[in-house]
Amino acid sequence: MSSADSKAQNSAIKTSGTVRVVGAGLLGTSIGLALTKAGVDVSLETQSPASLALAIEYGAGRAAQPTDKPALIVVCVPPETTAPIVARELAAFPGAIVTDVASVKAEILEQLRATGADLTRYVGGHPMAGRERGGAISGRADLFVGRPWVIAANAETTAAGVAALETLATDLGATPVHVAPFEHDRAVALVSHVPQLVSSLLAARLADADGRDLALAGQGLRDTTRIAASDPKMWTQILKANAEPVAGILEDLAADLNEVIAALSDTAAPGAIHEITRALEAGNAGVSRIPGKHGATATNYATVVVMIDDRPGELARLLTEVGQLGVNLEDLKLEHSPEAQIGLVELYVNPSAEAGLVADLLKLGWRIAA
Amino acid sequence: MSSADSKAQNSAIKTSGTVRVVGAGLLGTSIGLALTKAGVDVSLETQSPASLALAIEYGAGRAAQPTDKPALIVVCVPPETTAPIVARELAAFPGAIVTDVASVKAEILEQLRATGADLTRYVGGHPMAGRERGGAISGRADLFVGRPWVIAANAETTAAGVAALETLATDLGATPVHVAPFEHDRAVALVSHVPQLVSSLLAARLADADGRDLALAGQGLRDTTRIAASDPKMWTQILKANAEPVAGILEDLAADLNEVIAALSDTAAPGAIHEITRALEAGNAGVSRIPGKHGATATNYATVVVMIDDRPGELARLLTEVGQLGVNLEDLKLEHSPEAQIGLVELYVNPSAEAGLVADLLKLGWRIAA
Repeated sequence: MSSADSKAQNSAIKTSGTVRVVGAGLLGTSIGLALTKAGVDVSLETQSPASLALAIEYGAGRAAQPTDKPALIVVCVPPETTAPIVARELAAFPGAIVTDVASVKAEILEQLRATGADLTRYVGGHPMAGRERGGAISGRADLFVGRPWVIAANAETTAAGVAALETLATDLGATPVHVAPFEHDRAVALVSHVPQLVSSLLAARLADADGRDLALAGQGLRDTTRIAASDPKMWTQILKANAEPVAGILEDLAADLNEVIAALSDTAAPGAIHEITRALEAGNAGVSRIPGKHGATATNYATVVVMIDDRPGELARLLTEVGQLGVNLEDLKLEHSPEAQIGLVELYVNPSAEAGLVADLLKLGWRIAA
Repeated sequence: MSSADSKAQNSAIKTSGTVRVVGAGLLGTSIGLALTKAGVDVSLETQSPASLALAIEYGAGRAAQPTDKPALIVVCVPPETTAPIVARELAAFPGAIVTDVASVKAEILEQLRATGADLTRYVGGHPMAGRERGGAISGRADLFVGRPWVIAANAETTAAGVAALETLATDLGATPVHVAPFEHDRAVALVSHVPQLVSSLLAARLADADGRDLALAGQGLRDTTRIAASDPKMWTQILKANAEPVAGILEDLAADLNEVIAALSDTAAPGAIHEITRALEAGNAGVSRIPGKHGATATNYATVVVMIDDRPGELARLLTEVGQLGVNLEDLKLEHSPEAQIGLVELYVNPSAEAGLVADLLKLGWRIAA
């Protein structure tokens, strides 16, 4: 299918002209993938020929050409190089709107202002989507579906600049959220940067732990430490650029932590038990304020959990039979502990296929978990 | 299907006789559900008639009768009431083995010892399975599948007592793990109790936050704060009973936190940026040590990423060929977006098998992602 055909079938897509994507990490590749699938011409520019080749094979776009006349440029590079590359792009393409995807906004704007760049054509952006593993290889076209996409316009940004980024975000399935750069940084300190550091500090306690203790790890530990696997280099850049609001929140957290430690160190002291309960109740109150799960609704699949014997070939046999039943797998998760005799395979399928699949698998002798 | 018929079809189930389950919260209901489905006679005892009626309607068993002669009794009540109820059950059923499911073991054993209970028939237990939402309504028969189930025998426990709990755990799909009560408490302080408190303290920061800031919440915040929704009453009991090891770990965490705060408060100071990177790297090192799912990445497995066309049957074909190559899959993750033409399959294998597998798959025409 040609790009033009594909575009014709995506009449809802409003982004037009060539979109130039600079950088082919997780975000650049995901943006390129989604736009290419939608029939938009994506011109890719990267520092390394190897990452460019991978992104192109992956379907994220084509190599940039000197004759390109992009209407929109999306700079997807690490925070520390964002300002100079945005400035370079603004200068090189005087007709283009330039946006970026960096996790901090105020410092980048300040740096750009210092270079004398044409800020009327710059509109800061930040898609609130990411994964603990970066790189083109982790890119996915649906990364932004149902997620907020911050549009952090500066005082000089034209209405056309804001509109171009709104259109891009909407085309990729995200929800545009207008926030000023400084307010953005305060917000992400709370909802992203502090959670990252706290997760890292918690996971660090495991580094020297007894392996037998870790064998008792459950889902709670896995969830609280998942993002501790994030890239230290990139996160150091983010935290450095947003240090003040992050430090302020961490100080409040440290005060609470010290009260809990004091209470636990002498549980018989008056008020000690109440202090522990209060900390747990404050956690209840906080988590209840997080608005509904973004993104999850976008992938509305039914789950069929099959128990398989943990021996070579069983999973392949199951998937072969699922394929023969004509059911398309949307996703798959495998759960087994190294010592268990039984593994759990979670098959994600279209809800309309669920009942039939369960009945057919039972007929074939598979065990379905309740 | 009668219970007896069902039992006949579950010849692998080795638990015999009546199992008496005391308490119908999440764990009691889940145990009752799983055993009942397996055809085992489950006699339920609860404090409130309402929760008993709910558990019975849910399919977790039948109401206890004065004539019951249980071979095994599973006490599934909050930590603070576990010891007195275990003591009561040991006295009331002199022929039965009694176990419990409380998240702390040393203090309960101490309390039991003080009552003069018959400890030869008591074997402490702790299934490492739970959900942030408790109650019968959250119960599920597969809650324990693939999870560790701690068997914390005391010095007096008979071999028959240990065997009965091993059989129960295995019948419910869990993996028995033998740990002494004191070692158990030290381990769960690290892998469960500290993560709970840290998640609560982190979530507490959201309680008074600006709603517009919370609108930017992403998956990282949701994962790190999921367990902050846990029941404060139950967790206060757990933390009180395991206060010393929890406080010790939290003190180490507080020291790390203070170093990070100092670094963020003056990022220009010598070594400040390095300190932040070091904290993030320590998090990487810690999370990589979590065994099994999610933590598997760095642990002991090598990852081979194969790009497959996103069409039915491709994944099964790949896994069949991997099986034919004689390579044992330790884990598998599937990544594809609904719109991408290519899916990524991450194969987790023994590091010694990696190079050969890559070479063989390339020969067979598969595309390996860099």
